[in-house]
Amino acid sequence: MAQSLLSNIQYPSDLKKLSRDQLPQLAKELRDFVINIVATKEGHLGASLGVIELTIALHYIFDTPSDLLVWDVGHQAYPHKILTGRKDVFHTNRQLNGISGFPKRNESEYDTFGVGHSSTSISAILGMAIASKLKGNSKKQHIAVIGDASIASGMAFEGLNHAGVTDTNILVILNDNAIGIDPSVGALKEYLTKAQVGVKPRTNNIIESLNFNYFGPIDGHDLPSLLDTLEKLKNTSGPKLLHIITTKGKGLKQAEENQIKYHAPGKFDASTGDLIPKNNNGLPPKFQDVFGHTILELARSNENIVGITPAMPTGSSLKYMMEEMPDRAFDVGIAEQHAVTLAAGMATQGLVPFCTIYSTFLQRAYDQVIHDVALQNLPVIFCIDRAGIVGADGATHHGVFDIAYLNCIPNMIVAAPSDEIELRNLLYTASLKLEHPIAIRYPRGRGHIPNWKTPFKSIEIGKAKQFKKGDEIAIMSTGTVAHNVVVALASIASEKRIGHYHFCFIKPLDTQMLTEILKTYSTIITIEDGVINGGFGSSIIDFANQNDFKNKIVTLGVPDYFIQHGTVEELQDICGISSEKIAKTVKKLL
Amino acid sequence: MAQSLLSNIQYPSDLKKLSRDQLPQLAKELRDFVINIVATKEGHLGASLGVIELTIALHYIFDTPSDLLVWDVGHQAYPHKILTGRKDVFHTNRQLNGISGFPKRNESEYDTFGVGHSSTSISAILGMAIASKLKGNSKKQHIAVIGDASIASGMAFEGLNHAGVTDTNILVILNDNAIGIDPSVGALKEYLTKAQVGVKPRTNNIIESLNFNYFGPIDGHDLPSLLDTLEKLKNTSGPKLLHIITTKGKGLKQAEENQIKYHAPGKFDASTGDLIPKNNNGLPPKFQDVFGHTILELARSNENIVGITPAMPTGSSLKYMMEEMPDRAFDVGIAEQHAVTLAAGMATQGLVPFCTIYSTFLQRAYDQVIHDVALQNLPVIFCIDRAGIVGADGATHHGVFDIAYLNCIPNMIVAAPSDEIELRNLLYTASLKLEHPIAIRYPRGRGHIPNWKTPFKSIEIGKAKQFKKGDEIAIMSTGTVAHNVVVALASIASEKRIGHYHFCFIKPLDTQMLTEILKTYSTIITIEDGVINGGFGSSIIDFANQNDFKNKIVTLGVPDYFIQHGTVEELQDICGISSEKIAKTVKKLL
Repeated sequence: MAQSLLSNIQYPSDLKKLSRDQLPQLAKELRDFVINIVATKEGHLGASLGVIELTIALHYIFDTPSDLLVWDVGHQAYPHKILTGRKDVFHTNRQLNGISGFPKRNESEYDTFGVGHSSTSISAILGMAIASKLKGNSKKQHIAVIGDASIASGMAFEGLNHAGVTDTNILVILNDNAIGIDPSVGALKEYLTKAQVGVKPRTNNIIESLNFNYFGPIDGHDLPSLLDTLEKLKNTSGPKLLHIITTKGKGLKQAEENQIKYHAPGKFDASTGDLIPKNNNGLPPKFQDVFGHTILELARSNENIVGITPAMPTGSSLKYMMEEMPDRAFDVGIAEQHAVTLAAGMATQGLVPFCTIYSTFLQRAYDQVIHDVALQNLPVIFCIDRAGIVGADGATHHGVFDIAYLNCIPNMIVAAPSDEIELRNLLYTASLKLEHPIAIRYPRGRGHIPNWKTPFKSIEIGKAKQFKKGDEIAIMSTGTVAHNVVVALASIASEKRIGHYHFCFIKPLDTQMLTEILKTYSTIITIEDGVINGGFGSSIIDFANQNDFKNKIVTLGVPDYFIQHGTVEELQDICGISSEKIAKTVKKLL
Repeated sequence: MAQSLLSNIQYPSDLKKLSRDQLPQLAKELRDFVINIVATKEGHLGASLGVIELTIALHYIFDTPSDLLVWDVGHQAYPHKILTGRKDVFHTNRQLNGISGFPKRNESEYDTFGVGHSSTSISAILGMAIASKLKGNSKKQHIAVIGDASIASGMAFEGLNHAGVTDTNILVILNDNAIGIDPSVGALKEYLTKAQVGVKPRTNNIIESLNFNYFGPIDGHDLPSLLDTLEKLKNTSGPKLLHIITTKGKGLKQAEENQIKYHAPGKFDASTGDLIPKNNNGLPPKFQDVFGHTILELARSNENIVGITPAMPTGSSLKYMMEEMPDRAFDVGIAEQHAVTLAAGMATQGLVPFCTIYSTFLQRAYDQVIHDVALQNLPVIFCIDRAGIVGADGATHHGVFDIAYLNCIPNMIVAAPSDEIELRNLLYTASLKLEHPIAIRYPRGRGHIPNWKTPFKSIEIGKAKQFKKGDEIAIMSTGTVAHNVVVALASIASEKRIGHYHFCFIKPLDTQMLTEILKTYSTIITIEDGVINGGFGSSIIDFANQNDFKNKIVTLGVPDYFIQHGTVEELQDICGISSEKIAKTVKKLL
């Protein structure tokens, strides 16, 4: 085995001591390092393997952190983290109190901008470049690395459109591997597909039309070529774009061949690349699959049903419908704004659009939800996946704001089923055409009901359920956190005194049952997997206030600070909504 | 005078009875009709004058409303409304219970999609076109008319990017007049500027790169050419874009020459085009000007201050700074998402970015506020103009959700000054660099203090003010609605018993003063110019609940339905927050 170069590198200053000839060997070592740790610790693999050479070349040629480097999304930033002071803690990636899976400003001065959601890098780096210009710093370089899926999002276009009329020192590196988490889609992608190494896609390309100097395409795994090109670009002023062609998962055969699976493969054998098989037999389903299988089932018997996902066919499980009904299920790319208004347009013509978006990404389409859907009272069905605490992806990805930001919108029905069967029946109910838009939120991960494919039953909108009667304390929960309550109650001796009510509908509230509860119990505990400010509990307090109830009401949920990464269980515990913490709160109040 | 053609037209079916030769005469009459009514009733003039010929041609050639037509933004839809059944009610435009200033689905079947915010038309029409395709309706046409300012927004790009890989019957008409409300900006605009009638901007243009068939550019005021081209396009399948060149304000000399002023000129002389002069001497300032003049004043002595507006230099009054400091004040076009993340990027480098956005448009950048600003705790200063009820622009434009959607975000300071001087001092305070992002909301229109340019005084963050002491009822207001409270109290005989407290800070709350108030008064009335759900009053109730106060709390604000158009006073009255209604509520509670 060759002498280890990586062992001597903590920072880019160490990297710069190597000769150019040594860099391919370093690339090999770095790639192995990433593979070995992700194999056991899990995380995002494919994107990082695709930018090993680029990362080395950038830190070798440029003067980071003085030169400013922003990684779009950040899935691909593991080699960057390893070369910028975090090699020795990289094994704590995505764990509670460990390093974040994404670049993060308070983790390292090399992380110039926190990322997680896509397509922010061009705007961010332009802001930095304008700052440098105003400060008279004409030598400073400003680099954004963005993938071909992310650059097709509207926000990236807005950044390019502005940057093109500035004379800032910006270098946008388009890391073109034809895939985001799922394969890239759209007209821009088809256009880029025509590009081959050494051959510009067309003479006057889109990028040049936007006043960018276009370079490439070059092979993003060819270190000498990367180094030479970056060296040249370092001395080229103005906005410029370098188009590099890379392979997601580069260097691990299986990851190259199955890029979707190896985006974040879970545990695998580092030497062979084989996934460690999981035995999922008999396990309860993932909520995304309850959605994915149910919409397909419904669509088979209702030809007006269509499905829309912005770039998450696999993550949302819309892929099942896309496979069977490619004409009626749409991956629109990273384009949440478009996805929502497309659904609104479809709804005007009598289609029944199920628009599935992760809670945290629906923030991207907030105006469209208000202005295009709710204001027109169009019956679009929002299937909000990854609602609540999501775990290892951390602060950028928790879906904890949706109840608060949807609850204030007129006409919206906001629902959070307690389990797989209720989710299934709610999807069915929504497909029967409501007179309002509806948002159905459900969490990441698995439920608790292996046999969830029960016959469809329609659900009355706005109806809450009594899970359990008591006489002293009423727990009112919404969503799947109901399960935590059930577990908590099982651990309490005097659980007879505690009632448990499930509010599938946060809006409209079941005011009849609510009134009954407020009359019956002196103390109320509300529990939700979302922010307390403006959330479900807040609605309950408002109702109690408005109707002159004076009960003691305790609201549990996500507090008013950003929750970092860890397991869902750890983070729910921090928020006080784990079953242990719920039990503790109840006991204190008894 | 020629015989009136317009008088015989109520619907497109009437229009179709005319010969092609008669259409130029109709265009003249229609233009005069618009001018005459807008001259006295006010409204959006320039955009509508620019599409007189296009509107006639579209309804003449296509089979509306069976063929589907979406107007982007809708400022330009007056001639459309007049030709589609609303000629006789057009004089009620933008008035309470009159027709809306924008296309609106429940107003006419010819208004296929409600608009107001920009850049939604391509997504909406694509949704409709996909629906037609699924229903096997291959003849139906789907047309979106979008301006050059609106097509540069990210959302429009997302729509094009998707549409380009479909085989739907879509016709996008790019109405290129080089101006939105203010002149268009950005690289795409520079690219389009190269286009001249009959000459494509470049051989392989951006549009064709996105798989659209590109036609034009043609003169959008040349009816024969428009008619011939549309006839041809009607029989061309697949996604296509027609680029037409028009003049905003066409046909009214002053409107052509001063396009910004005549976007929505107020009252003017219909025969000469001269504006009816307003005597503004001695009037209190517009809040936007308090912002515009103050940021310039601050920027003169602090070189780190920068200003950003997405396409509203005139409306936000950032134009003063742009004129004096073009390097430090940025119009980024209709690109709210980019504007916010650009500001975040600038803040990382120590600049002090003031990002001014209308409340309703900040909805477009909600994710960026959370993910790029608040999560990183970057001290971006959001100057939220047009907060609260905005009046005649109506449901699409009221800025009533901001308190609710910002209040739930950790790290945010949310402030609403009571008057011009407090706004001025708040801007000053924010410029001293806070440790958090801050959102400062202020309304459309004028305040009440002509001499508002007082020496700067810094404001303590989170501090409320006692305006007036009482002993029975406490009114707690936030924002400029404080003035309504003052007027209301003046009309109440027993006003001594009523206290009035101004909470400039909705977040963080002045919990000390709040505790004092809850101890002193049995009854509390909260008042805000925003939605009650999740708003300021809701925060007060939450605090009271959490601290076991049992006061009667009445929350006034915008109820849970969409408020339509009318004057601010009429609409505030409907919401119960006019001074009359406040007085009424107080008297009832005394």
